[in-house]
Amino acid sequence: MPNIPDTEIKDGNYKPGTILDEKWRVEIDSMGQVRVPAERLWGAQTQRSLIHFSIGNDHMPIEVYHAYGVVKKAAALVNTRLGRLPKEKADLIIKSADEVIAGKLDENFPLFVWQTGSGTQSNMNVNEVISNRSIQLANGLVGSQHPIHPNDHVNLSQSSNDTFPTAMHIAAVKELREVLLPKVGALLTAIENKANQWKDVVKIGRTHLEDAVPLTVGQEWSGYAVQIRQALQRVEASLDELYQLAAGGTAVGTGLNAPEHFGVEIAKEIANLTTFPFVTAPNKFAAQGSLDAMVAAHAALRGLAVALMKIANDMRWLASGPRCGISELILPSNEPGSSIMPGKVNPTQCEAIVMICIQVIGDDAAVAFAGSQGNFELNAMRPIIINNFLHSARILADGCEKFRLFSVEGTKINEKKIEGYVANSLMLVTALSPVIGYEKASKIAYAAQNDGSTLREAATKSGEIDEKKFDEIVNPQKMVGDTTLIFEV
Amino acid sequence: MPNIPDTEIKDGNYKPGTILDEKWRVEIDSMGQVRVPAERLWGAQTQRSLIHFSIGNDHMPIEVYHAYGVVKKAAALVNTRLGRLPKEKADLIIKSADEVIAGKLDENFPLFVWQTGSGTQSNMNVNEVISNRSIQLANGLVGSQHPIHPNDHVNLSQSSNDTFPTAMHIAAVKELREVLLPKVGALLTAIENKANQWKDVVKIGRTHLEDAVPLTVGQEWSGYAVQIRQALQRVEASLDELYQLAAGGTAVGTGLNAPEHFGVEIAKEIANLTTFPFVTAPNKFAAQGSLDAMVAAHAALRGLAVALMKIANDMRWLASGPRCGISELILPSNEPGSSIMPGKVNPTQCEAIVMICIQVIGDDAAVAFAGSQGNFELNAMRPIIINNFLHSARILADGCEKFRLFSVEGTKINEKKIEGYVANSLMLVTALSPVIGYEKASKIAYAAQNDGSTLREAATKSGEIDEKKFDEIVNPQKMVGDTTLIFEV
Amino acid sequence: MPNIPDTEIKDGNYKPGTILDEKWRVEIDSMGQVRVPAERLWGAQTQRSLIHFSIGNDHMPIEVYHAYGVVKKAAALVNTRLGRLPKEKADLIIKSADEVIAGKLDENFPLFVWQTGSGTQSNMNVNEVISNRSIQLANGLVGSQHPIHPNDHVNLSQSSNDTFPTAMHIAAVKELREVLLPKVGALLTAIENKANQWKDVVKIGRTHLEDAVPLTVGQEWSGYAVQIRQALQRVEASLDELYQLAAGGTAVGTGLNAPEHFGVEIAKEIANLTTFPFVTAPNKFAAQGSLDAMVAAHAALRGLAVALMKIANDMRWLASGPRCGISELILPSNEPGSSIMPGKVNPTQCEAIVMICIQVIGDDAAVAFAGSQGNFELNAMRPIIINNFLHSARILADGCEKFRLFSVEGTKINEKKIEGYVANSLMLVTALSPVIGYEKASKIAYAAQNDGSTLREAATKSGEIDEKKFDEIVNPQKMVGDTTLIFEV
Amino acid sequence: MPNIPDTEIKDGNYKPGTILDEKWRVEIDSMGQVRVPAERLWGAQTQRSLIHFSIGNDHMPIEVYHAYGVVKKAAALVNTRLGRLPKEKADLIIKSADEVIAGKLDENFPLFVWQTGSGTQSNMNVNEVISNRSIQLANGLVGSQHPIHPNDHVNLSQSSNDTFPTAMHIAAVKELREVLLPKVGALLTAIENKANQWKDVVKIGRTHLEDAVPLTVGQEWSGYAVQIRQALQRVEASLDELYQLAAGGTAVGTGLNAPEHFGVEIAKEIANLTTFPFVTAPNKFAAQGSLDAMVAAHAALRGLAVALMKIANDMRWLASGPRCGISELILPSNEPGSSIMPGKVNPTQCEAIVMICIQVIGDDAAVAFAGSQGNFELNAMRPIIINNFLHSARILADGCEKFRLFSVEGTKINEKKIEGYVANSLMLVTALSPVIGYEKASKIAYAAQNDGSTLREAATKSGEIDEKKFDEIVNPQKMVGDTTLIFEV
Repeated sequence: MPNIPDTEIKDGNYKPGTILDEKWRVEIDSMGQVRVPAERLWGAQTQRSLIHFSIGNDHMPIEVYHAYGVVKKAAALVNTRLGRLPKEKADLIIKSADEVIAGKLDENFPLFVWQTGSGTQSNMNVNEVISNRSIQLANGLVGSQHPIHPNDHVNLSQSSNDTFPTAMHIAAVKELREVLLPKVGALLTAIENKANQWKDVVKIGRTHLEDAVPLTVGQEWSGYAVQIRQALQRVEASLDELYQLAAGGTAVGTGLNAPEHFGVEIAKEIANLTTFPFVTAPNKFAAQGSLDAMVAAHAALRGLAVALMKIANDMRWLASGPRCGISELILPSNEPGSSIMPGKVNPTQCEAIVMICIQVIGDDAAVAFAGSQGNFELNAMRPIIINNFLHSARILADGCEKFRLFSVEGTKINEKKIEGYVANSLMLVTALSPVIGYEKASKIAYAAQNDGSTLREAATKSGEIDEKKFDEIVNPQKMVGDTTLIFEV
Repeated sequence: MPNIPDTEIKDGNYKPGTILDEKWRVEIDSMGQVRVPAERLWGAQTQRSLIHFSIGNDHMPIEVYHAYGVVKKAAALVNTRLGRLPKEKADLIIKSADEVIAGKLDENFPLFVWQTGSGTQSNMNVNEVISNRSIQLANGLVGSQHPIHPNDHVNLSQSSNDTFPTAMHIAAVKELREVLLPKVGALLTAIENKANQWKDVVKIGRTHLEDAVPLTVGQEWSGYAVQIRQALQRVEASLDELYQLAAGGTAVGTGLNAPEHFGVEIAKEIANLTTFPFVTAPNKFAAQGSLDAMVAAHAALRGLAVALMKIANDMRWLASGPRCGISELILPSNEPGSSIMPGKVNPTQCEAIVMICIQVIGDDAAVAFAGSQGNFELNAMRPIIINNFLHSARILADGCEKFRLFSVEGTKINEKKIEGYVANSLMLVTALSPVIGYEKASKIAYAAQNDGSTLREAATKSGEIDEKKFDEIVNPQKMVGDTTLIFEV
Repeated sequence: MPNIPDTEIKDGNYKPGTILDEKWRVEIDSMGQVRVPAERLWGAQTQRSLIHFSIGNDHMPIEVYHAYGVVKKAAALVNTRLGRLPKEKADLIIKSADEVIAGKLDENFPLFVWQTGSGTQSNMNVNEVISNRSIQLANGLVGSQHPIHPNDHVNLSQSSNDTFPTAMHIAAVKELREVLLPKVGALLTAIENKANQWKDVVKIGRTHLEDAVPLTVGQEWSGYAVQIRQALQRVEASLDELYQLAAGGTAVGTGLNAPEHFGVEIAKEIANLTTFPFVTAPNKFAAQGSLDAMVAAHAALRGLAVALMKIANDMRWLASGPRCGISELILPSNEPGSSIMPGKVNPTQCEAIVMICIQVIGDDAAVAFAGSQGNFELNAMRPIIINNFLHSARILADGCEKFRLFSVEGTKINEKKIEGYVANSLMLVTALSPVIGYEKASKIAYAAQNDGSTLREAATKSGEIDEKKFDEIVNPQKMVGDTTLIFEV
Repeated sequence: MPNIPDTEIKDGNYKPGTILDEKWRVEIDSMGQVRVPAERLWGAQTQRSLIHFSIGNDHMPIEVYHAYGVVKKAAALVNTRLGRLPKEKADLIIKSADEVIAGKLDENFPLFVWQTGSGTQSNMNVNEVISNRSIQLANGLVGSQHPIHPNDHVNLSQSSNDTFPTAMHIAAVKELREVLLPKVGALLTAIENKANQWKDVVKIGRTHLEDAVPLTVGQEWSGYAVQIRQALQRVEASLDELYQLAAGGTAVGTGLNAPEHFGVEIAKEIANLTTFPFVTAPNKFAAQGSLDAMVAAHAALRGLAVALMKIANDMRWLASGPRCGISELILPSNEPGSSIMPGKVNPTQCEAIVMICIQVIGDDAAVAFAGSQGNFELNAMRPIIINNFLHSARILADGCEKFRLFSVEGTKINEKKIEGYVANSLMLVTALSPVIGYEKASKIAYAAQNDGSTLREAATKSGEIDEKKFDEIVNPQKMVGDTTLIFEV
C-alpha cells in the first residue's frame, strides 16, 4: 500500500482545485472533498479507490486505459454530432483522449485490478484525467471540473456498465490482432520452414512413447504447424464476438440518458478510429449482463496453449540427452544450464513455454469461473477477466516470439541418431502384417525383442518370409507414404 | 472388480473357441490363450482389459461403440470397394456392424474408461465382437477367428490410432446434433416465449446486486435468450473441426497398410451413413497427435455452462423469498422443499442446473489438461476426453430439458412486487442527471435514502425541480427505451 | 428419462397405499398424491424427484445411502433415549436402517445426482424407504405412513440440512479409511519393495530431461515412495475435519426441533456404529453453511493425484522404447498394445493412472468451485461435491490397486541399458568441479560432446587431470552418496 | 522487451570486467563473453536470460531473491565451518548476502518468471550479484570473478536444484507467517467482534435462498468466523512440509559435491537466520523431484479463498438494495458507485474479495497442474509455482486487510428490516411441526402463502391450534436455541 495519508478531507470546505501545499490538491466528488497528489491529474474517485483497493501488485492493464481513450474520443465525437455536447468541449475531450491513447498520460492511471467489479473506478479515473487534462488545455483550474466535468461531459451518454466492456473488447482485439496473431504467426512460419527443411528425413514414429512405424520429420512438424494454425483460426473466429460493443446500453442495457442511435454511432466511430470492424452489440442486456464473448475468446487462447504445450514437450523430449535420452533434436545452447553441472544445456525455452501454457490454462479457469458469476444486469467480474485475458495473450505472444527466435529457428536434427532408431526399430514389422497376417508378424517382433536380434534376422529365421521379400517390403522410405506436407486446413 | 477368475490360460493348448465348461470359452490373441465368458462375444484382448482395468464404475460410453460400428461398417465398404476385402467377408462385417450401431450388442462392450490411452482395447473389443458375431452369422466357431479375423479383417486398413478419434468425433457430433442442440434449442425457445410474454412489464434493474434503473422483464429475459443463442452458435461452430476424421492415417498418420485414398473414401462413407458432413482430416499427424478439436468443442460446452449458470442464478435469486427475499418471480412448486420446514419450496431445478454447470466446468478442466498431454504421434488421453465430453453434453442437454419443463415454462411473475420495487427505487434519479447534472442528482438520492423519503419528495424538496417536471422526466415506462426484443445475433 | 407415466394423481382421493393396479401404488406427501412403482419402497417425494431430475446417468452414490442408514439408526437410538420416540417405533426404524446399511435395499434408491442442492430428496428417499420397510416389518399398509411416518418419525430431530452433510462425512471417511488408504498403502509398500530391491543399482540422473549426475534406482524410487507417503499423510490429516458432524443443527444450525444435546449424542452413536471417531461439529453454522472440510479433503486427494502422475509418467518414460527410447525399465506385457502394429507393448497401466490423476484434478476443480457457492445457512452444492469426492477416491484407489498388481510389482530393470548410460554420460564431469573448478570442467564436457569422445578422453586430453586421478574421482559408485534409503518423513 | 543490443560478444577476447564504454561491462561465463549494463552487478548468465526470456511483465518475485540471500549466507557460514571456504571469502559473501536480504540490491534482479524451470537463472543471478558485490567490497574488479567466483564460491556445495526450492520454501513461509496469517487473523477478529456485537439480534435464516427458520446475526457471523479459523488452521498445518528444505541434495538429491551433513547444517543455519523451524528434508529425491509441499500449501490458500468467497457473497447479498433487495446489512459507502447513476453505492470491497478468491482458485489450478509435471530428478515448473503462490498469498492478505478496514468493521445492521422479515416469514411454522405434525404444518404454510395472510392467521384459521398456544410456540427468540457463540474448533 503506497504510503498516502488519509484521503478524505472531513468537513472540507475548500474551493475545488485548491492547492493545499506543494504536494496536495483538493478534488471533489458527490461524496465530498478529497486530497490528491498535486502532480497527478486524477480526481477524487481515483484517489478513493487507491486508498481502498491497494491490493497486491496487480494494476489494471494500461491497455485498458488506452482503449478507454478511444471510447471517450468516440463518445465526444458522437455526442457533439448528435447535438449533446458543444463542439469546443468535445474538442478538448478529444485532444485529451488522444493523449491517453498515445500513452502520454500513463502515470495518471494508478488503480489496481481488485476494485469494483464493474470497472467504474477505472472509468472514473479516465473521466477525471480527461477532465483535468482538458481543463489544463483550456487554461482552467485543475480540479474545478470546469469547463469539462468528468461525469456530465466526459462520461456523457455513457455508463461504466457499457463502456468498460467496450474498452475490454477494444483492448482485447488490439492485443490479439497487433501482438498475438503476428507473433504466433511468425512461429507458425518458422515451424513450417523446419517441416519443409526436414521433409524427406525418415524417422521412427512413437505412440504411447513406444517405438512405432516411421514417418518423416517433416510430417511430424507439419502436425505441429497444423495444430498452431487451427489454434490461430479459433482465435480469429473468437474476434467476431469481440467486435460487438456494449456502448450505448448505458446503465442496464436500455440506453437510458444516451441519445437514440448512440450505440450504432459510437461503434462506427470506434471502428473508424481503430480500423477494426467493431459494431454495436445487437442485444445490450446480454452484452452487459455477461462476459461470454471474453470467456470464449480466452478459451481460444487456451486452445493455443494446449497445442503449444504438446509441441514444446515433444521438442524437449526429442532433444533429451545428449547421451542418455532420445536425442533426435539438438536445440540451441543459449546459456549454461546448471550452476553445478558443468557443460549442461537444458531445453529452457521449451520449459518456459510449458509454464506459460499451464499459466494460461490456470488463467482460463479464473476467467470461466468469473464469467459464470454475473447477476442480473451486470457481470461484476470484469477487472479479473480483462487482466487475465491480456496476461494470457501477452505471455503467449512473447513466449512464442522467444521460442521461435531462441529455440525453433536454431533447432537442428541429429541425423545419425534418427537413422539408427529407424534401423533398429522392431515396429517396421507392421509392414509385414498385410502379407503374413497380424499374428505371425507379432511372433516375429516378440522373438526379435526377446533375443535382441534385428527384425530382419527374426523375420527370416521365422520362415515366414525370405530376405529379399523382407527388404522389399520393410523399407522405411516406402512406409512413410506420401511425403507431401499439408499445412492448410 | 468383477469376481472373475484368472483369465490367462497358462501354457494353454486348446483349439480357439473351445468351450471349457458351461461358463467359459477359449479365445486367443498374439499373447496366448484366455478364457472368456461363454455367453459373450468378446475375445481375448477385451478379457485381458477387463481384468487389468476394472477401475471404479466408469465405463467407456456406449455411444463410442455405436459410433465405432459406423467406422467398421464404413471400413468394410471401402475395403471391399478398393479390392482389399472379399465381398462375402465385408457383408458379414457390415451385418454385424449394423447390430452394433443399433445397440443390439451393447452387453458385449464391458470395458472401463481407465484403460489404454489410445482406446485400443475398446477398438479390439469392437473388432472381437464383430469378428465373433460375423462368425456366428456364418455358422462358424465363435473364437476361431475364421472366417472373420478381428485384426486382419475387421480392423483392415485401420489402427486404433486413427479410428478411435474417428469414433470420438462421430459420437460427439451425434450427441451434439441429435441431443444437445435440440434440447437446449427448446429451452431457448421457452425463454424467448417468456421474454415476449413479459415484454412490457417494467421492473427495476440491478447492478452490483444494488437497485439500478428500470428495464422490462422481457428485456432481461431477451438477454438470457441471446446468451444461450450465442453459446449454441459456438457449439455449432465447433462442429466444423469435429467433422474432420483421422481415419486413413493408421498407426502414425502416414496411412501405412491402408490403400491409397482410404481416408477420403471412409470419410465419405461415414458422412453417407450418418448424414453428417464428415470429411477426411487434411493433416493426419495433427489429427492423431492431438485432440485439439475435442478440447475446442468442450470449451464451447463450457461456454454454454457459463451462460446457463448466470441465468439459473438470476432465476433463483429473483424467486427468493417468498417473504424475505426478492420474490419477483414465482417458480413452479414441484416438490416439498424441506424434510423439516413444512411448506417450503426451493428453486431445485436452478440448483441442479448450477451444479451441472460447475460439473461441466470441472470436466472441461480435465479435458484441457488431457488435451495438453499428447506425445509425438499420439495423444494417449482419449478415453478421458471422450468420457468427459459425452458426460458434459448429456447432463447439459438433459438438465436443460428438465429446467425448461419443470422451471422455465411454469415460471410466473409477481407483478405486485415488481411494481413496488419500481415505485420505490431511488435510482430513477438517473433520469434527472441530464437535466440537473450528476452531482445535484446524487444529493437528491442520498437525501431520500437518508430520510427514507421517496425520490419525488426528495427531488421537489431539493428545489432543483418541481413536481410536474419530475413526473414528466422520472417515468419508468419511458426510461426503458425501445422495448422491441432482440433475439437474433 | 425412464419411461414413467405422469406421476402426480390430479385431485386424487385415494387412501394412501392403495394399489392402483399391478404396477402402481398410491403414495402421498404434503403436496398431494403420487403413483409409485408397486414393487418399490420409496414414496411420493422420491417419485417426484425421479420425474423431475432424471438427468444423464449420474446417480447419487449408493455409499451415501448406506451412510444415511447409519444416521437414521443413530437418530432413532438417540430419539428414543431422549424420550422423543417410542421404543417400538425406534426398533422398527433401526431394523430397517440396518437393512439399508447392509445394502439390502439398494434398488430403492434410484435418484440422480442433479437434484436439490441440499440433498433433501435423497434424505426423503431414505425416510420414505425406512418408513415403508418399517411398515412392512410391522405388517402395516405400505404407503400409509403408519405406524412410521417418514418425516415425523424417521426424520425426527433432523433436517436434510444437517443430516445430508453428516452422511457425506460418514461416506467419505469410510471410503478413505476402508478403501483408499489400504489400497494406496499397498502400492506404497510395493514401491518401497522395489526401491529396496534396486538399492545399489547406479543409474544416471536426469534433470530437465537432460543427463545429470548419477543416483541409485533405489534412491529414485525412494523419492516416489516418500511422495506417496506424504500424500497419504495429508489424506489422513484431512480426516480430522471430516470427523466433525453437522447432525443436531437441523434446519439452519440452531438445532430447532431437536432435543438438547442431540448433536453430541448422535455423533457418539455414529462413532459407536462405525468405529470411527466422529464428534459433533462445534459450530453448526459453519458446518451447514459451508462444505469446506470436503473441499480440503478433496484437495488431499488431488495431492495424491499430483504425486502419482509424476510417478506414472516417470515409469512410462523410463520404459519407453524398446529400441528407440530410454528403456531403463521393463514393464509387464499385459496385453497386445496395438491393433495394427504387431508385437507392440504399451505402458497402459501408467496411462490409466495419468488419466485418473487428470480426472481427479478436474473433479477437484468442480469441488472447489461448488464449495465456494454457498449462501447464508446452506451450501446447496452437496450432491455434486459428494459425487465427485467418492468418484475421485474410488478411481484413485482402484487405479492404484491395478497399477500395483499389473505394473509396479512386475516391473524389471534393464541393467545393461542402465550401465551403458552411466558409462556414457558427460555429467560425471561434475565430480571434477571441486577439483579443477566449474569452468574448466565445463570446457571438458563441451569438448567431449562436440567430438563424441568419452569424458575420460576429453578430460585427460585437456591436460587438467591425469587418468589415474580421473578414475579416482569420477567414480559413479562414489557419486551417489549415502545409499541408505529413507522412507519415513 | 528492454531495448538491449545484442548481448553476446562474438569471439570476444576482453579481460573479464573490462568497461567497454560508459554503458557496458564485459562479463563471462562458461559459454563466452557477454556485455552487461555497467551500472548493474549481474553477470553474463543473468544477461543471457534477460535477452532470451523477456516475456510479458511477470518478474520473479523479489521475495525469492531475499530468501535466496538467506540461503547464500547460510551456505557460506556452513561451508566455512566445514572447512570448504576460507573465512575471508565467506565474510564477503555474507556481507553481500545481507544486503540482498535487506533489499538493498533489488534492482539487480531483473529476471522474468518464464525462464528455465529449475530457477537456475535466478540462482545464477544471485550468485553473480553476490560475487560482484563481494568483489566491490574487496575493492576488486567487478566482472573478474575474483576473489569471489559465482559458481565456485557463492554456489559452493549447492545446485539450483536444491537451493531454488529451498528459497521457495523460505519465501513462502515468510509470506504466510509475516503477512497472510496476521492480516487474515485481523479479519477473523473483526468478524468475531461483529458476531459478538449482534449476538442477540434474531434474524430470518435462509436456505436455498428461501426463507427458513430464524437464527441470530451473531450465530450467522460465528459461522463465518469458524470458516476462516479452520481455513487458517489448514494454512498453518501446511507449514510443516514447507519447513523441510531440499538444500544439501545438490544436483539430483544425492548431495554430490556437498560435504557430509551439509543439508542438516544449512537447514539449522536457515532456521537460525529466519527464526522459523526449518529442517532438512528427510528424502531429497522427493524434495527435488516434486513440489508437492507447495501444491499442498496452495491448496490451503485455496481453502481460504473458498471460505472468503462465501462470506463476501453473503455480505453483498444481505446488503443488496437499498430498496429492492434484502437490505439486512448496511455496508460502508466508500465511494460513489456509478458514473451514471447518482447516489449509487455498491459492495465494492466484497466484489474485490470475490474476484481475488476466483483468482486464487485459478492460480491453484496452475499450481496443481505444474506440480504434476515433474520428471525424474526435477520438477522443472518451479518459477510458475512460486510466482502463483506468492501472488495468491499476497492478494488474499491485502484483500482481507482492505475488506476488514473498509467493509467488515464499518458494516451495520438494518434492524428494522431484520425484524420485519422475522415477523413475516412463514417458516416459523416449523416450530409447530413437533406439535401438530409435519403435514398439517405444511398446510398452514401453504394457506398463508396462497392468501397472503400471516402465519398466525392461517394457523388459527386452520383450527389446529389456538392463538395462545401459537404465540407460546412460535416465538422466534426461543427458536434460535442456545445463542452462545462458538468460535473455537
